Amino acid sequence: VTGGPPWRVPAERLVAFCAAALEAAGVTPDHALTTGRRLVEADLRGRTGHGLIRVGPYVDRIEAGGVNLHPDIRVVHETPVSAQIDADNGLGQVAVTMATELAIGKAQNAGLAWVGTVRSNHAGAAGLYPAIAAKRGLIGLYLAVANANAMPPWGGNARVLGTNPIAIAIPAGDGPPFLLDIATTVVSHGTIKVAAMAGEEIPAGWVIDGAGRPITDPARVDEGFLVPIGGHKGSGLNIAIGLLAGVLNGAAFGRSVVDHAADLGTPTNTGQALLVMRPDLFMPAPEALASIARHLDELRRSGSASGEPLRLPGDRAGELETENRARGIPVPDALRERLVAVATRLGVAHPFD
Amino acid sequence: VTGGPPWRVPAERLVAFCAAALEAAGVTPDHALTTGRRLVEADLRGRTGHGLIRVGPYVDRIEAGGVNLHPDIRVVHETPVSAQIDADNGLGQVAVTMATELAIGKAQNAGLAWVGTVRSNHAGAAGLYPAIAAKRGLIGLYLAVANANAMPPWGGNARVLGTNPIAIAIPAGDGPPFLLDIATTVVSHGTIKVAAMAGEEIPAGWVIDGAGRPITDPARVDEGFLVPIGGHKGSGLNIAIGLLAGVLNGAAFGRSVVDHAADLGTPTNTGQALLVMRPDLFMPAPEALASIARHLDELRRSGSASGEPLRLPGDRAGELETENRARGIPVPDALRERLVAVATRLGVAHPFD
Repeated sequence: VTGGPPWRVPAERLVAFCAAALEAAGVTPDHALTTGRRLVEADLRGRTGHGLIRVGPYVDRIEAGGVNLHPDIRVVHETPVSAQIDADNGLGQVAVTMATELAIGKAQNAGLAWVGTVRSNHAGAAGLYPAIAAKRGLIGLYLAVANANAMPPWGGNARVLGTNPIAIAIPAGDGPPFLLDIATTVVSHGTIKVAAMAGEEIPAGWVIDGAGRPITDPARVDEGFLVPIGGHKGSGLNIAIGLLAGVLNGAAFGRSVVDHAADLGTPTNTGQALLVMRPDLFMPAPEALASIARHLDELRRSGSASGEPLRLPGDRAGELETENRARGIPVPDALRERLVAVATRLGVAHPFD
Repeated sequence: VTGGPPWRVPAERLVAFCAAALEAAGVTPDHALTTGRRLVEADLRGRTGHGLIRVGPYVDRIEAGGVNLHPDIRVVHETPVSAQIDADNGLGQVAVTMATELAIGKAQNAGLAWVGTVRSNHAGAAGLYPAIAAKRGLIGLYLAVANANAMPPWGGNARVLGTNPIAIAIPAGDGPPFLLDIATTVVSHGTIKVAAMAGEEIPAGWVIDGAGRPITDPARVDEGFLVPIGGHKGSGLNIAIGLLAGVLNGAAFGRSVVDHAADLGTPTNTGQALLVMRPDLFMPAPEALASIARHLDELRRSGSASGEPLRLPGDRAGELETENRARGIPVPDALRERLVAVATRLGVAHPFD
């Protein structure tokens, strides 16, 4: 059945499918479940470029021997406010979930904590990890080195920087949290992948060729460079993220970044960093969280240019999550066909019937 | 004498002039000297929108009673990794310099520190403060709520957000540090002020009117909105900065921001935040700093589109500082005339003869 509205599948069923597929590929049950949860959380919140669409590529990488299926993920340097996690080339979602839990515990005790990863892998949607902190009433900031280079430093002509994302989650008491989740390029590879899978043209301003001309054909993306937000400003922010989430941890940055889609076998040595902070460093937490909620509401009510309600970062994703939890996650035909093929190849049941 | 190349004046002479002018306006000698140093450091590094050009407006604000000349700047909340500084409506450069020193000391002891200000004022160029941390071999990140609102949240139509800057300094051992210093708008008010003073048209893309049309006449800037970098992305980053540097500290954000140029008498309750981190949390400092230097050099040598050397954030400012320390700081005619007028009014000697 194709051509109608996309199938909607309950989130828990998709988590079970992702976990079963990863287990069939050799991942341990607990790592498969954590990874499945993070992938489906991305789809729940509309970050479809980092959700179910990644199951096939992850399985391909595992089958090529590019991921350690029995990693010894451990803390190698630690202080009361910091830790470095060596992910031993395990799945990124597992390592960064551990890093998040560790940073949350340290911040609850010390007020503030920074945790970095080394020898990690692609960990999916950036916003998921600070969102875990925000659910516990803490502020979270996440930085990551992206898993493929896509552009030069501003003014350059060699592909040595990725889409290096930043995500910031700030809890707001009873109100919806603020949750920013952005690549430092105008768009991410994930967004382009989704557009390409839908057969859509890419808007001018997303990708440029060596002479600065727009590339709009999704099939020609690899010839060009992604464009950083704000020109030299986004380029600089991108480099700062690479230094803080990669170089500082001993992880890959610049020419040492492995393109995880093109090279399935070489460990990526991905680096990620998490800062978690208690919101009560300057005033009691209830007062701080209420003040944040009040200011966010003031912005939401400040007036809309279109007449549509003004949405802040995280608002649309939160609405989508509510809708998708109630109605199931929409799975477009092309993605469903891919997932059925993965299920068939691995001999596991697919979730579409 | 007008029309020739700008006068160049030694930095120390300009610091002494700024300090003398502020003292004549009633500022205590130590606060006047600190403020003068930060203003001239901005000019040294080419951040002319936050340098000498501000002496007149600062004096105007002081004379209008908008600044506390004898503030009791003190730490009101403190943990081993954090502090809130109540600036008691003193000059911003003084409060943020204190915040920087405090954050540096705490980070040296604990590894990581976050210091926020409340009841502060405009503190000039954002990059100056993390640069102090980088000179001591530490990583610094600075966030501030700007002192005037200039745009709506993305999709909105009311002026409730400023240019909220972020600055990040990362030391690189023997190499020049990485130093990013950006407003989250395509340009800052300071840049527009400099263009306006030079009588230049403003490029399209800096300021838009309510219908999204570019405004290029510097005299019409106040009718329009500044444009955030990367559209919704820069808008979100801008809001995050406002929450973390303002609301969390109990400082102004959104509709409570006082336009310090339009309202000279009302305390601005400006908020700033500094994160300082030791670079040796994950590996010995010499190894970390050498690795950062090596990666920055790799980027600099990665190839230039124009044939000109590829510069990273902070490189051009560092070159300018070297040149301006050797040759003096260039002071354009229009600025010199303003400073002479300030000197005459306050009865202090001007530095141009």
